[in-house]
Formats: sequence, C-alpha cells, structure tokens
Amino acid sequence: MTASRPGRFLTLEGLEGVGKTTNLAFVESWLQRHEIPYLVTREPGGTPLAEELRHLLLNPRTEAVDPWCELLMVFAARAQHLNTLIRPALAAGTWVLSDRFTDATYAYQGAGRGLPLPDIEVLENLVQRELRPDCTFLLDAPPEVGLSRARDRGELDRFEREKVDFFERARRIYLDRAAAAPERYHVLDATQPLAAVQQDMAARLEALRP
Amino acid sequence: MTASRPGRFLTLEGLEGVGKTTNLAFVESWLQRHEIPYLVTREPGGTPLAEELRHLLLNPRTEAVDPWCELLMVFAARAQHLNTLIRPALAAGTWVLSDRFTDATYAYQGAGRGLPLPDIEVLENLVQRELRPDCTFLLDAPPEVGLSRARDRGELDRFEREKVDFFERARRIYLDRAAAAPERYHVLDATQPLAAVQQDMAARLEALRP
Ligand SMILES: Nc1ncnc2c1ncn2[C@@H]1O[C@H](COP(=O)(O)OP(=O)(O)OP(=O)(O)O)[C@@H](O)[C@H]1O
Ligand SMILES: Nc1ncnc2c1ncn2[C@@H]1O[C@H](COP(=O)(O)OP(=O)(O)OP(=O)(O)O)[C@@H](O)[C@H]1O
Ligand SMILES: [Mg+2]
Ligand SMILES: [Mg+2]
Repeated sequence: MTASRPGRFLTLEGLEGVGKTTNLAFVESWLQRHEIPYLVTREPGGTPLAEELRHLLLNPRTEAVDPWCELLMVFAARAQHLNTLIRPALAAGTWVLSDRFTDATYAYQGAGRGLPLPDIEVLENLVQRELRPDCTFLLDAPPEVGLSRARDRGELDRFEREKVDFFERARRIYLDRAAAAPERYHVLDATQPLAAVQQDMAARLEALRP
Repeated sequence: MTASRPGRFLTLEGLEGVGKTTNLAFVESWLQRHEIPYLVTREPGGTPLAEELRHLLLNPRTEAVDPWCELLMVFAARAQHLNTLIRPALAAGTWVLSDRFTDATYAYQGAGRGLPLPDIEVLENLVQRELRPDCTFLLDAPPEVGLSRARDRGELDRFEREKVDFFERARRIYLDRAAAAPERYHVLDATQPLAAVQQDMAARLEALRP
C-alpha cells in the first residue's frame, strides 16, 4: 500500500564529530512529538549488506584503496540502501532520517580524494534517478572542532586519519553545495552550544510539518 | 620503469563450468614456453580488497541483493584490480591473463539481471577509460554443459543458483559482443574435447606473439 502522501527524506551532513548523530536524536524526538512515522538510518550502511560495505570502507587496511573503488563501494551501499529500505519507506509515507547521504560523497570522495564532481554526478543520476533529500541539515564547523571531538572517542577510522587539508576541501564543497541550493540545505553553525544549534533546527523542521 | 612495449591483456570468458580456469592453465603454459613475463588473476577479485568484494558478491545471503548494488560492487572491485594491479603490470611489459572481466558484467548483470547495457557502458568508460582487453577467449557452450560440471563440484554460489534462463540470456550477450568485435574475441566451442579447444587457442595465441 502506498500512502497518498509520501514521506519526507531528511539528511544530516558535516565533517567528523560535528554533531550529526547527536542532532539526529533531536530530529527524532521532534518526529515523535508530532507523531510522524519515521525511520532512522545512516550511510554508508542501513542494511546488512550495506553495513558490510561500510566496514570495508571505514576499516583501516594496509592495501592502498583506489579512490574509484572507494567511490563505487559508497554508491553500491547506497543502491542497496535506497532500493531496499529508503524508497519503500518513503512510498509508504514514512519519513526517512539519514546520518549522511550523497553530499558526503561529493565532499569526501570528490573534494577530499580529488575525483571529478561531474563523474560523481553521473553516478548519482544512475543510482538515484530523480531522488534527492527534501531537506539537508549541514552542520558546519572548522575541521579541528570535530576532529578533536572524534579523537577523544579513541580508534580513528580510515577517514578520520586524513589530514586537516582533506577536511578543509570537504568543508568547502559542502558549503558550495548548500549555497547553490538554499531551498534544500539548512546550514547550522556547529561551533555554537548544542541548545542554539537545535533551536535553529526546530525552526526549519516546523516549516516541513505536514 | 615502463617497458617500451606494454604487456598484452588477455581474458577468458564464458558461463559457469565452461572451462575458463582449466584453459587459463593452458595459456599460462604457452606464456611460460615463450618466456613472456605474465600475471594470472581473476574477477571479481585479484587484490585483497577486491577479493573481499568477491566474497560479498558470490556468497549466498538471505537479504535480496539489489541489481544496482551488485553492478557497483563488481565495478568497485574492478577499479581496485585495474588501478593497483593490472595497469602497473601492463605498463611494465607484463602480460595479464584474467579469468573473467567486463564482458561477464554485460552478460551477468546486464542480460542476466536485466540492467540496461548503456548504463553498464557508462560505468565501463568511467572506470576503465580507454582500457579494453587485447584478446578475449569466449568459451561457448549451452548452460547445461557447464552447470552440470559446476554442480559436481558441490556448494553453489549466488550466481550458480540462478535458473537456466538467466544463463541463456547471458550466453546470448556474450555471443553478440563477440560477433560485434571479431578482432578482439576468439569464440571457442567448449563442448569439444579439451584437446580440440586448446589446439584452437594455440593458433590464436601465435598471432599475438611479440
Ligand atoms: N554543538 C556542540 N557543542 C559541543 N559539543 C557538541 C556539539 N555537537 C556535538 N557535540 C559533541 O561532540 C561529540 C561528537 O558528536 P557526534 O558524535 O554527534 O558527531 P558526528 O558528526 O556524528 O561524528 P561522526 O562523523 O564521527 O559520526 C559528541 O561528544 C557530542 O556530544
Ligand atoms: N572441453 C571440456 N570437455 C570436458 N570437460 C571439460 C572441458 N573444459 C573443462 N572441463 C572440465 O569441466 C570442469 C569445469 O571446468 P573449469 O573449472 O575450468 O570451468 P570454469 O569455467 O572455470 O568454471 P567457473 O565458472 O565455475 O569458474 C572441470 O572439471 C574441467 O576439467
Ligand atoms: Mg556520528
Ligand atoms: Mg573457474
């Protein structure tokens, strides 16, 4: 059964340790308060096979990972996630809240690894067809802010081990993409105290309320 | 150091159990006899990361695998294989002999799973740029021939469990591709006794001799 009104697709983006997972819980409580049916997920991952791909992507390894291999693993996980979990949920009227999505691919594999953004766009169109998030919260802060938070957590993954320069480039692309489509993105200053960030989010969420 | 003359890239293709691995050993002995430096590899696979992807691709699982996810995992493994192993070898003058390559993607993910062949071509161009095998041996036989040989080997992988119809479609695409580029493909009748198949291969190999 397909609901007459499809669910909204919301994503949270930003560099390491910037507060995506923390603020996702805030969006979740907002959805609960408004009795909106929702699903919380993350990328890369979201299904057992996609989580196995996440594992291959994030775990440090001795073999140098080719950037194209990395990009295609990201989109392989995304195809599985999208076609088996996200699309059916949205069609059933369930809102989907994802911790990262394709903006992270432009930022990390594009700006970070240096793969051409038009090639990423080709893959985005092949895999997603017309599907794009309805609203993306971009938590913005200088790389050092989140990286020092991530380092406090212990073992660093394959991305967290990158140099600050990688994240400076990624941040730039995130901001460029947000500036190019202000109707979709909501940029939040993640250096603010959490309460201020969330007050800002709440205002945007109200505008999405069915 | 790059040799003045790059190595040749040879691939073996065909349905399950048709004799790819068996005849690869024959090509290998021919290369040894002619003292040509070579590397034997396979797809999906060929590097530790690509072999992990092979594992995800071939192992039967309860989760239904989205065809796009499958296709992108195949090309992710291929990018790693190509950029870290095959290209450097060819540039150094080493011949590369691969048990399956992109023709199998057209046959299995294209004809078998029903993904559009032009979409596969987009990925082929993104990942391989201009690189194509110099010579492809296509071992052709009706699906039953090789499937009964594969079944004798025990546990079936995720592809070997497909119905005959899947392989009929795959065989058709293999033959179509060979017919469209006869200078690259050498089609061998794999229902013949092994000695006859290999006599046929030897003639083609002589034409490739440096
Ligand atoms: N605005 C903020 N001010 C201060 N601390 C914050 C703020 N936002 C998040 N934090 C804290 O920073 C740490 C990292 O936050 P969180 O795990 O949510 O980041 P993340 O973006 O999900 O990180 P990752 O990319 O590694 O998953 C947590 O300890 C969290 O409580
Ligand atoms: N022309 C032939 N005549 C008879 N038997 C053959 C012939 N070619 C191969 N065989 C036998 O068929 C079996 C399968 O061959 P092989 O493993 O080389 O196939 P394959 O194409 O590599 O299979 P897979 O796709 O499963 O890797 C082996 O036992 C092999 O000895
Ligand atoms: Mg997080
Ligand atoms: Mg074999």
